[in-house]
Amino acid sequence: MAGRFLMPAMPKRPSSQSRPPLPAPNRHGLSSLGQRTAEPPISWLMEQALTHPRLISLAAGFTDNPSLPVAETRAVLAELLADAPRAQASLQYGKSSGDPKLIRLTAERLQAQDAAAGTARTSASVANYDPGRFLITHGSQQLLYMLLEALCDPGDIVLVEDPTYFVFLGMAQSRGLRCRGVRMTPEGIDVEHLALVLERLRHEGELGRVKLLYLVSYAQNPSGITTSWANKSAALRLLKRHEPAAGHPLYLLEDAAYRDLRFAGAEVASALTLPGASRRVIYTSTYSKPYATGLRVGYGVLPPQLAPVVHRLKGNHDFGTSNLLQCVLAHALESGRFASHLTALRQRYAEKAAVMGAALKQHAAGLLEWSEPPGGLYYWARLRGPGRTGPKSRIFQMALKRDVLYVPGWLCYADDPTRPKPDTEFRLSFGSASEEGIREGIARLAQAIRSS
Amino acid sequence: MAGRFLMPAMPKRPSSQSRPPLPAPNRHGLSSLGQRTAEPPISWLMEQALTHPRLISLAAGFTDNPSLPVAETRAVLAELLADAPRAQASLQYGKSSGDPKLIRLTAERLQAQDAAAGTARTSASVANYDPGRFLITHGSQQLLYMLLEALCDPGDIVLVEDPTYFVFLGMAQSRGLRCRGVRMTPEGIDVEHLALVLERLRHEGELGRVKLLYLVSYAQNPSGITTSWANKSAALRLLKRHEPAAGHPLYLLEDAAYRDLRFAGAEVASALTLPGASRRVIYTSTYSKPYATGLRVGYGVLPPQLAPVVHRLKGNHDFGTSNLLQCVLAHALESGRFASHLTALRQRYAEKAAVMGAALKQHAAGLLEWSEPPGGLYYWARLRGPGRTGPKSRIFQMALKRDVLYVPGWLCYADDPTRPKPDTEFRLSFGSASEEGIREGIARLAQAIRSS
Repeated sequence: MAGRFLMPAMPKRPSSQSRPPLPAPNRHGLSSLGQRTAEPPISWLMEQALTHPRLISLAAGFTDNPSLPVAETRAVLAELLADAPRAQASLQYGKSSGDPKLIRLTAERLQAQDAAAGTARTSASVANYDPGRFLITHGSQQLLYMLLEALCDPGDIVLVEDPTYFVFLGMAQSRGLRCRGVRMTPEGIDVEHLALVLERLRHEGELGRVKLLYLVSYAQNPSGITTSWANKSAALRLLKRHEPAAGHPLYLLEDAAYRDLRFAGAEVASALTLPGASRRVIYTSTYSKPYATGLRVGYGVLPPQLAPVVHRLKGNHDFGTSNLLQCVLAHALESGRFASHLTALRQRYAEKAAVMGAALKQHAAGLLEWSEPPGGLYYWARLRGPGRTGPKSRIFQMALKRDVLYVPGWLCYADDPTRPKPDTEFRLSFGSASEEGIREGIARLAQAIRSS
Repeated sequence: MAGRFLMPAMPKRPSSQSRPPLPAPNRHGLSSLGQRTAEPPISWLMEQALTHPRLISLAAGFTDNPSLPVAETRAVLAELLADAPRAQASLQYGKSSGDPKLIRLTAERLQAQDAAAGTARTSASVANYDPGRFLITHGSQQLLYMLLEALCDPGDIVLVEDPTYFVFLGMAQSRGLRCRGVRMTPEGIDVEHLALVLERLRHEGELGRVKLLYLVSYAQNPSGITTSWANKSAALRLLKRHEPAAGHPLYLLEDAAYRDLRFAGAEVASALTLPGASRRVIYTSTYSKPYATGLRVGYGVLPPQLAPVVHRLKGNHDFGTSNLLQCVLAHALESGRFASHLTALRQRYAEKAAVMGAALKQHAAGLLEWSEPPGGLYYWARLRGPGRTGPKSRIFQMALKRDVLYVPGWLCYADDPTRPKPDTEFRLSFGSASEEGIREGIARLAQAIRSS
């Protein structure tokens, strides 16, 4: 793994501004947020796909189509809808915080996962799985959105990993937030750099504007890195240490979206098991990735002082996530179909990851450096030689010409005025492409790099 | 209908403040929005229900349980999931703006409804049903929320009906908006009063802060009133007239959530058919009420200048509504099961409305005045004699003591400093209670009023 996580090369291109631009003349009557919200990069990527019909997409975050749980869902729904009172309940409104049964099953599963990881040391942390702290959302993204709403005013600062999940950056942009990037090591967040960033913010008198550190801690999107328990622990200690100067908790927002898609390495306990987690750790995850993206059911665990606030926001957003979707998941969990599907799914992604790894070795060994991801849907690769990979780069254009699409690493870095954005990386997804598509896509990408 | 919609009696109680309170000391690091967002009245009402287990709820906005489309949904899902490629597509991510097929079916249905109403005069309005203007959301409430996000900054003004949908008031409160109430007549919005309110705002130099008029135009929640096409038309003309002074469009936000639950009166064309609608009318509706509340699928039609902005917000909120839910509805629509279910549902609600009407006549004729709703789920009744109906009133407490719950009319009025909140009304739902529950509930309510 070494080599890849040294400081990324610094391109000369200046980063864009970190503060939201002033509102333009507003003839449509838009709010500041409405005026500010930029087109997400994903729309632009999808446009490329639409205008190149023979495209092999190594960009999409879609999951593997053939392994979607069709038979499981058919069986679950047939059983669920066979019983009239139960069926009626699933077609009726529910509680806005979520279906109590799904919450119970989710809490039990999460607690068992953490216990199995063996680093959950304190018995006090049992309270962190209290069902009253849970919230079921329409995908975990909705929860991330509501957390930014609950915690951040325009101009507030969120700390993110360098690189991070680009959709989170889009939300932050829309909400007028400033981001600061924290470097990563093969063990996750670079704790020394986090200390430096916090110290700098303290020095600048900005610590009161800092609200949270966002960690995509399992098989990270995009880097593939799983953050070690020790690194999470050190990060939380640092945040705690700066709380008195901030005047409020500095939250650790742990996004565990890819936790269930682990196919290598050991299970790592969540940040909920850290000392001091109770009032500081927010945990979000999803059933979209391990079960079906078409279901859009996410969940989270909230510190007790935040739970009522975020529950109210959920009430205002939509009253609660579709009861039918929640009942499908609860029944899939309870009947064991979720578990058996997930076992098969992990195997499937392990195979697809191996296919991509082999293709990279065969076609791109001299061109790129990368490491094997322990889970998730992505390889993260970096140019060995000179060149850029961004949307306007020659490599990106040559790749498009050869009908292969990737996510430029550039899109995964926050606008942070304290460093330029690295522009030499690729996020390569093995989620939706077929094995044949993966092989061919990597071959074409290598040609594109060579020819540029 | 006459008599009921004269100006409501003015209680002496002062209305609460119209501007958001200053942030409290913020030791949890909440945003202004997080600090401001109040507990919704619905939570408090649900608490009453939980602490009174034998309660008859005439408060809940839940739909009728026995008539939920269990058989239809079972058939739809069996067909949908029988075909592997189609099943896989329904379990995969979709487009964030919505499933193209569901959008097409929704647009066609809406256009046919408007055409059947016979007031759609211009051929130009066909463009108003362009699929590119549509957005599918997780319930229409999510769309209302995103519209407030896209259009309104804290301190901006929204015009609402007196009374209006109380959840909308909660969203406005959370987002720091000011509301102005506009009276209603039996034909919907009181156009003369709207003219007065706009004139007053112009005079106060506040017109630039006004963003929209929110009309729940079909069998309104809570009043039951359906707004006539003529009144919608006059309202839009007034808004247009004030646009130059406002400096931007004054949007007419038409919430048609109860349109499909009509069981009396004629179909009224939507505001999309009004002259000048194209850039000013926003239409929202839902499949929750006419099909199943457990599915949470809403939709809207947006002016072309707003569509891209709200589409981006939807991308940030959740990438798009669950594809499975959308496929269920598209297939229910296409197979005719939606239409046949809706026919039966309207009949069912007509019967339940008649049961409540008869019970009111039998038990409360001397106590209350009301009129027969032409659709929806609610009767709206007003005390004939003195007394109040609010959450702290003796009538409310006596009703609770007799195990019957209603929504106090007081909750359905905006905080508007230009008038006190009326406090003499009841929203009485025939949605979820059984026929027997409705009869018994109204009898108990009459006893409560008499004994207070």
